[in-house]
Amino acid sequence: MPSIPRIIAVDVLDIRFPTSEHLDGSDAMNPEPDYSAAYVVLRTDAGDGHEGHALAFTTGRGNDVQANAIAALAPYVVGRPVAQVCGDLGGFARSLSHDPQLRWLGPEKGVIHMATGAIVNAAWDLAAKRAGKPVWRFLGEMSPEDLVGQVDFRWLSDALTPRDALDILRRAQAGRAERIEHLLRRGYPAYTTSPGWLGYSDEKLTGLAREAVTAGFTQIKLKVGASLTDDIRRMKAARAAVGDHIRIAVDANQRWDVQPAVDWMRQLADYHPYWIEEPTSPDDILGHAAVRRALSPIKVATGEHVANRVVFKQLLQAGAIDIVQIDAARVGGVNENIAILLLAARFGVPVCPHAGGVGLCEMVQHLSMFDYVAVSATMHDRVIEYVDHLHEHFIDPVRVVDGRYVAPTAPGLSAQMREAALTEYAYPGGPVWTSRAQGAGNRPDQAWDAS
Amino acid sequence: MPSIPRIIAVDVLDIRFPTSEHLDGSDAMNPEPDYSAAYVVLRTDAGDGHEGHALAFTTGRGNDVQANAIAALAPYVVGRPVAQVCGDLGGFARSLSHDPQLRWLGPEKGVIHMATGAIVNAAWDLAAKRAGKPVWRFLGEMSPEDLVGQVDFRWLSDALTPRDALDILRRAQAGRAERIEHLLRRGYPAYTTSPGWLGYSDEKLTGLAREAVTAGFTQIKLKVGASLTDDIRRMKAARAAVGDHIRIAVDANQRWDVQPAVDWMRQLADYHPYWIEEPTSPDDILGHAAVRRALSPIKVATGEHVANRVVFKQLLQAGAIDIVQIDAARVGGVNENIAILLLAARFGVPVCPHAGGVGLCEMVQHLSMFDYVAVSATMHDRVIEYVDHLHEHFIDPVRVVDGRYVAPTAPGLSAQMREAALTEYAYPGGPVWTSRAQGAGNRPDQAWDAS
Repeated sequence: MPSIPRIIAVDVLDIRFPTSEHLDGSDAMNPEPDYSAAYVVLRTDAGDGHEGHALAFTTGRGNDVQANAIAALAPYVVGRPVAQVCGDLGGFARSLSHDPQLRWLGPEKGVIHMATGAIVNAAWDLAAKRAGKPVWRFLGEMSPEDLVGQVDFRWLSDALTPRDALDILRRAQAGRAERIEHLLRRGYPAYTTSPGWLGYSDEKLTGLAREAVTAGFTQIKLKVGASLTDDIRRMKAARAAVGDHIRIAVDANQRWDVQPAVDWMRQLADYHPYWIEEPTSPDDILGHAAVRRALSPIKVATGEHVANRVVFKQLLQAGAIDIVQIDAARVGGVNENIAILLLAARFGVPVCPHAGGVGLCEMVQHLSMFDYVAVSATMHDRVIEYVDHLHEHFIDPVRVVDGRYVAPTAPGLSAQMREAALTEYAYPGGPVWTSRAQGAGNRPDQAWDAS
Repeated sequence: MPSIPRIIAVDVLDIRFPTSEHLDGSDAMNPEPDYSAAYVVLRTDAGDGHEGHALAFTTGRGNDVQANAIAALAPYVVGRPVAQVCGDLGGFARSLSHDPQLRWLGPEKGVIHMATGAIVNAAWDLAAKRAGKPVWRFLGEMSPEDLVGQVDFRWLSDALTPRDALDILRRAQAGRAERIEHLLRRGYPAYTTSPGWLGYSDEKLTGLAREAVTAGFTQIKLKVGASLTDDIRRMKAARAAVGDHIRIAVDANQRWDVQPAVDWMRQLADYHPYWIEEPTSPDDILGHAAVRRALSPIKVATGEHVANRVVFKQLLQAGAIDIVQIDAARVGGVNENIAILLLAARFGVPVCPHAGGVGLCEMVQHLSMFDYVAVSATMHDRVIEYVDHLHEHFIDPVRVVDGRYVAPTAPGLSAQMREAALTEYAYPGGPVWTSRAQGAGNRPDQAWDAS
């Protein structure tokens, strides 16, 4: 008798795109990102052809550190029975984040937590492929009890108990099938950040903003925080370009201290920004609360750098944010994002995911769609960020039509890249990188040698 | 003319001690730690024989991840002029933590931040050796203006401005020389955790507790949080062993949610615990505040897992803690700890450092002594944790006499290990590890194969 199928390998790849060459993705704190993926493949000996693919996103340098951390988790994964992992993804996720020695490196934050997230997401990709469903539907068809079993409630019980979670999920059971049908027919609303990168000229900004409206988007986003004069001019131009009925969010990428955030945003208030995103440190719960109090009715949004569910819990408890911005690759994977969706539902705060980078749109769409089917049960005031970069490298890329994400139907988490991309953009040995001049791209500035 | 001296290498070593074999260091969240160091050496071509030594502490598995992260920072360090680094350690520290691509991995938390901290601490070791002073005195003799220049005030200005910092430091200028003399004569108070590890029997606990009192300690600490019945019995035994006038702190190592922390501690209140340390998640500012409100007059302490100055700022703003527990190796090095000492002084909260592990006592004593000389200017209600493990591996180990740390006089940060230790405990190739059976020690439990 053959032995039971097991996970036999965790392959990790360092994949980098030289996006800094065109200033795509430039903001006040990330002037020249090279969008990168610490990419993971779970392989099994089940013989069914299914692999689990996912990635941790980084902005270039340090992608090797992230990849090394994922590789360090391989001994926790290789050898496990496939059916056990896929049958208890909650237990699998907890076994990684609770390891008593590894948790010193976090706990549950930064490099080690994103490594956990990448592996957990890859396991969800594998499990959903085996079930023949896209992850949003795989989740959306689970029982409330099974969904509660996915969540690590440690440190949450002053805001969300398993009982609370069960109540939320049971309330949302009515109408699940209709909402699945609605998603398949109409998709999920998106907004676009493509016009608003700091490195773009005013002409490029307003041209892209008008194109976005024509394409059906009802919300765009601009990066701010490098120069107040520039921001006022750009905001004014964008408002003139799109008219009064399109929402314009702005994003400072953590650039300010608390009072400077308030002062700066007051200068933009005439142009009615919809939300200010990451006004200050992502760790500063009390700071976000102070900014929100001072700037209302401008909304405050954050999340792409929020380390874990405990920080989200407090942002909600403190009334610090109007918008929860989950990110598919920042926290401990699908399981922790279920906890965060439940927290948001408990506090009645809409979730508008962060996406962009590479693969983040592909993965996070599943979480918003699941939220619509089985948690908040609404799309009201909810939009998924959309950035039109690098989707061509994915086997099942997102499709945005009339300003809405089309619900994916292929099984899995949509994070699988094409073989050609994995070869071409491998760092440092792939042809895209070896063809660049020695010393160019993806190296630290050696500013100390300029003087 | 020879070129100016530069940093020519960043050597990184993975050093692990098999401490789990004797349950030294066992607590409710870390049942079997193998105390480890991701050890760094900065080498220069100055020809003066000085190197910079420091380490990031971990509890075993994952020490390779931490070492890799330090190695990834080498390109930011190698090639820099020694005089420039040692002459502007504030600028050096900021250049590492502000790198626009690497900061995605944090920002300023977890693996990448501890890597920054290790390198920054090694640079302080180097600078202090070149100045011929122990770090506490090197810092304690800097001007207030130079000390303010060490601090990254980003995200702090709602609680601490450069002006506030200057006021604190200028007020403490009077009496600096006398306090240096006092330190050299009398040292700095310590407390000991050696009796209280969870893995120890009651007999070992009470025996070690009595020894601690005989040795001059006025405070001891017990680990709690695994079993309430055991904790009540151990606390009662410890109180009986040491009498009413010795402070007994307890430490839950993040084991509880908010309400369970309150409920559990109320069961220990009869034995007058002095502080409860890490009652819940280190990220849970609001949770700590709730625990403190409920348990007063039992004090609340935290810090060994507090990721950075922004979280400490909020713990102080929210009135969440009575005791700030800095850690030499958790945050971005000496510079960020100066910021945290200044925040504590601004809020009038005493600093009682976390130490133990390997090398943490050696490094952190410098920070408390500097605080006494130039920041808070007092030792009142302040004690440095002391654990009597692994000091024999250091060239300039801490010395604790009559329950007090003796002020070190050798130049540097005291973190330099003996060559023999660096060879013997190298992981996985050193003789201590190769002599152990295949599969033993420092590998993940493969619990999934037990069923």
